[in-house]
Parts: sequence; structure tokens; C-alpha cells
Amino acid sequence: MKVRVTVMLKEGVLDPQGKAIGHALGTLGFAELGEVRCGKVIDLDVPANDAGAAVTQGEAMARALLANDVIEDFSVEALS
Amino acid sequence: MKVRVTVMLKEGVLDPQGKAIGHALGTLGFAELGEVRCGKVIDLDVPANDAGAAVTQGEAMARALLANDVIEDFSVEALS
Repeated sequence: MKVRVTVMLKEGVLDPQGKAIGHALGTLGFAELGEVRCGKVIDLDVPANDAGAAVTQGEAMARALLANDVIEDFSVEALS
Repeated sequence: MKVRVTVMLKEGVLDPQGKAIGHALGTLGFAELGEVRCGKVIDLDVPANDAGAAVTQGEAMARALLANDVIEDFSVEALS
């Protein structure tokens, strides 16, 4: 079963990558753009038969490796 | 209005980062893990009043800068 782990920086944590993208988009003519925040997405094919078990496994993997819980939040959703 | 642009490598494009994460999760004891694919997420606060216009702006930004359409696919969803 596939799950998607989305990892984003916590509110208040400076996002230099987001700032750089916002600046670049501004120079490309996308005016009045507000805040830009970046994160990562990891799609995992986990050995689970139902969505609940798959999400639980995804959360365990996020805590173990995928997200740094000091500065990042994560969410897990079942894809299929 | 906020939109989320999700950028993933196209099917068939080798994902070394995904492979490295899969290998690392294996060594941490997450057995029988299938394919792992990575991507990026960019949350944009765009100057639009409705979801349709916001998604259209997000798509334009993705084509202009955020996604390399040779090897990447993107999707845009309105957040709020």
C-alpha cells in the first residue's frame, strides 16, 4: 500500500529556500507573491493491508528518519 | 490565497534519493519496504481571490520555475 509523508518546516523556522524561490519568482514577474514555504514529499510503498496500518507505519518511518522533529512537522496520508 | 505545488519525478526516472532513503529505512528495521519516491512541496501565498485563479497562478509558477518538465510532473491544489 502507498502512503505519502509530507514534511514541512515548523511555523517560525526560517526557510531560506522558500525565500530564494519567492525572490526568483518575483524577478520572473510574479508580483505580490506572499510567503513561500518549501518541504519534501516521500512516497512509500509499505507492507500493510489497510490504510490505518499503512499510515501508522509511515508515521513510524517519519519519526525514525524522514522528519527532524525539532524543526519539522510531518503528515501522513494513504495514497492507494 | 495559499496553494500547494507538489513536484515529483516522472515514472521511470531513477530516484537515487528515494533509493537511499529506502536503504536507510531497511537498516533501521523497516523490512519489506517497496519503492520509495521523493519529491518537493512548495506552498505559495498567491494574490488571487478564488481557488481557480490561485491554482492557475500556481501552475504558471510551476512551469516557469518550480518544475523541470523534462523529468518532473507537478500538481497544484488550493490550500485555503
